[in-house]
Amino acid sequence: MANFEGLNSITLNPGDELPPLAAGRMRLYNMRFCPFANRSVLYISKKKLPVEVINVNLKEKPDWFVQRNPLGKVPMIEHDGKVVFESLIVNEYLDELFPETAILPTDPFERAQQKILVERLSSIQAAFFAFMMNKDGDYTQAIESMEKALANAESLLVDDFYGGKTTGYADFAVWPIFERFPAITLNPKIGVKEFPGAKYPKLSAYIERMKQQPEVKAVMKPVELHEKFLKSAWIEKNPDYNLGI
Amino acid sequence: MANFEGLNSITLNPGDELPPLAAGRMRLYNMRFCPFANRSVLYISKKKLPVEVINVNLKEKPDWFVQRNPLGKVPMIEHDGKVVFESLIVNEYLDELFPETAILPTDPFERAQQKILVERLSSIQAAFFAFMMNKDGDYTQAIESMEKALANAESLLVDDFYGGKTTGYADFAVWPIFERFPAITLNPKIGVKEFPGAKYPKLSAYIERMKQQPEVKAVMKPVELHEKFLKSAWIEKNPDYNLGI
Repeated sequence: MANFEGLNSITLNPGDELPPLAAGRMRLYNMRFCPFANRSVLYISKKKLPVEVINVNLKEKPDWFVQRNPLGKVPMIEHDGKVVFESLIVNEYLDELFPETAILPTDPFERAQQKILVERLSSIQAAFFAFMMNKDGDYTQAIESMEKALANAESLLVDDFYGGKTTGYADFAVWPIFERFPAITLNPKIGVKEFPGAKYPKLSAYIERMKQQPEVKAVMKPVELHEKFLKSAWIEKNPDYNLGI
Repeated sequence: MANFEGLNSITLNPGDELPPLAAGRMRLYNMRFCPFANRSVLYISKKKLPVEVINVNLKEKPDWFVQRNPLGKVPMIEHDGKVVFESLIVNEYLDELFPETAILPTDPFERAQQKILVERLSSIQAAFFAFMMNKDGDYTQAIESMEKALANAESLLVDDFYGGKTTGYADFAVWPIFERFPAITLNPKIGVKEFPGAKYPKLSAYIERMKQQPEVKAVMKPVELHEKFLKSAWIEKNPDYNLGI
């Protein structure tokens, strides 16, 4: 994590001062548990870009954050007065700024295929949030969506990674959900005992393989910590941004 | 429209044969009234790329269509055995394939800003579909969303076009909704008499300006035709794909 400065720094709240950003320095506005911000954290980890990280309270947003990004979302990149947000836009932007460590393929068709793969894998994300947003305690539909999404993700995995022989753009887009999804197995009320389970051998091997990648290892969090955060955010409605620091 | 072959050709249904595609030729799978497909139609119109168009029934999808695109959506591009879908991915792909007519700026930051603008304008699209999906005949909320989205779009228009002094990537992404939105004024039950209305002078001038652009003029349809199609699709649940041919 030598390229990150402050990846697990204390979260800044309204009223907290924003430290000045030196010329030529790159800053990432992040939320430590946000799966979208995590896409750019992974990208930066793989590219080994030197960045300083500002962790932001997304429930009560500091003025300096909303001023820079009216959508109020992370990830956001800032450097030399320039601001870019939206995870997939940020990642492609980082490749264009630093082509020597480009993760997207240079061939237009191959690039497009990586982007299409992210769309085709988006049902995993929808399934995950179906669990989070569940209100009536009946998880039948969420489990059904999950099984469909897993079967789809299994069928789309035709090599070691979604990026091919090595991790790529699509892997870093989908991994944050795969990292968080096993948290549902820690809630006995949901009734899912393993994720993704033996029905999905390719996906199970993929998840183990991803965990061994240096760029993933460097920034991943234990599932127990994710579970605690998700509980604080979705059940207690009081996200505990500084968990585990 | 000289660069399009078959833009208003009869829609193909399940059982209809797909004509062979010659080597080196580019084909667009389209639905004549689809706002997402229209993004790529506009892009191709501006770039003056020679393409042949296959119009596809999206309610009952031909096998050859779903085989090429498991998501079953338009636009889709096919050439030399390569298939690319998702409107924004298609448009960026066309710029990468044909950089001599690139619409996205080459500067990474400017490119990113055009993509961010599409995200920031997406509330217009959400507001439009809120009208279409309305079921109880009470349009209060949809009108509220529309006003918010229009105020936002008005504030984001800081030049002649969202692309700057000329039409750009963001214009072609948002225009299909601006072309269709006035259809709501033709339904007296909704109670919206003008779109976007005098409250939005910049946007009103923008819409008139867009209608005069050759690439828009070449492919746009009268609002009455859109209204008929929307009625067939959303109220009668029987989309009339060949309206106006």
